[in-house]
Amino acid sequence: MRNFKMIVEYDGTAYCGWQRQKNGLTIQQVLEEAIQVITGEKVTVIGSGRTDAGVHALNQVASFKCSTSLPVNNIYRGINSVLPPDIVVKQMEEVAGEFHAQHDVKSKVYVYKICNQRLRPALGRDFFWFIRFPLNLALMKKASRYLIGTHDFSCFCATGTDVKDRVRTIIDIEIKNCEDGLIEIKVEACGFLKYMVRNIIGTLVEVARGKRKSEEMKVIIESRNRKIAGVTAPACGLFLKEVKY
Amino acid sequence: MRNFKMIVEYDGTAYCGWQRQKNGLTIQQVLEEAIQVITGEKVTVIGSGRTDAGVHALNQVASFKCSTSLPVNNIYRGINSVLPPDIVVKQMEEVAGEFHAQHDVKSKVYVYKICNQRLRPALGRDFFWFIRFPLNLALMKKASRYLIGTHDFSCFCATGTDVKDRVRTIIDIEIKNCEDGLIEIKVEACGFLKYMVRNIIGTLVEVARGKRKSEEMKVIIESRNRKIAGVTAPACGLFLKEVKY
Repeated sequence: MRNFKMIVEYDGTAYCGWQRQKNGLTIQQVLEEAIQVITGEKVTVIGSGRTDAGVHALNQVASFKCSTSLPVNNIYRGINSVLPPDIVVKQMEEVAGEFHAQHDVKSKVYVYKICNQRLRPALGRDFFWFIRFPLNLALMKKASRYLIGTHDFSCFCATGTDVKDRVRTIIDIEIKNCEDGLIEIKVEACGFLKYMVRNIIGTLVEVARGKRKSEEMKVIIESRNRKIAGVTAPACGLFLKEVKY
Repeated sequence: MRNFKMIVEYDGTAYCGWQRQKNGLTIQQVLEEAIQVITGEKVTVIGSGRTDAGVHALNQVASFKCSTSLPVNNIYRGINSVLPPDIVVKQMEEVAGEFHAQHDVKSKVYVYKICNQRLRPALGRDFFWFIRFPLNLALMKKASRYLIGTHDFSCFCATGTDVKDRVRTIIDIEIKNCEDGLIEIKVEACGFLKYMVRNIIGTLVEVARGKRKSEEMKVIIESRNRKIAGVTAPACGLFLKEVKY
């Protein structure tokens, strides 16, 4: 069996997230079907991780095994010719058999975009979280410092998930005002829990609105209690930007 | 009758353009209906000019007359509360009775966005023209110089339009690579003919691809013949950016 690695960009608006499921169309399913059209083989595409419904990816990494004898470039072009306009394979290469898109991840970088202005914008609505209340980025930055490092992040893990080990390491959080008027929050971590980025963003926004003190972030983490943390930020503002191996 | 001026932002993707028509939903119709819901009056909304189906606006200017006694701020908030998410009134003010959003225009600024890369992008597809062939912006800029000034622009006017006077003045054209990786072409003119910006862009792109010489632009303009000019650029890349009075 040959092993293939690909970098995928997608507009998640129309999909029920990454992972194949019975009751909705997912990125994984669409990719697997495209590969089957081109290679004639039923394959399983393994993503670096799942993304939720409505979440976008600039560079999701995925791998799949296949015994096709087609040159990698033909598979690459073939897949892109059958994929819908909102999914594209940016790169594809053949890799050693041991490479596994999920298990081998060293860290992942997510970017969350916020449109912070008084009036709702008509353009770009599917690609940021619109917040009309003024946000204090200095307070947000201060609160974000408590998140850096290795912690039990149960407080930011979606309820109802059966993951036992909720210790994760956040390597860096960068918050900045961008040229296009949007606020960008970049979070790099060695693995994420379900809804973790969105729950962190929701909590940081509550700090930036002045509803919570920056220092509260420490208490929230230590509580290990999802109910103590803030709201879940909308999926449409989230982009998987990079996966490091 | 009171006279109101408003600045409107819209995502044109879902609409058959600005101007009210029988067989499709337009921005003008949606605005007129929203105003009627709030004021109880049937009004005619006059835009600074029409935008084609799929064209967006950052700051379209429109005016309407109405005898309502509601304070302007109430109308403003009311309209925005009933408008769909892809249309928003950014500003509204009461103006002198003589103000006319179309007749009083001094100049208009359009921005056209091009995504120039080898691979089709999955994100942002409704907001630029994707061109996979390399574009030479220096050649494009050189060609654009011939357009500046007062000319008979029949060569860039949609066929089948019955406008007699096709002399227009282009004040400036600015072409630049932006931070987000897109190419932006800004065109300011005292009035535009139907499809004029899109036909100019289509022709400039042919120059930038090396299919025509920059100097040909002079010949094209002098021909006054639509068939001599280039293709019509797609609507989705076009944004009405500013209207000056």
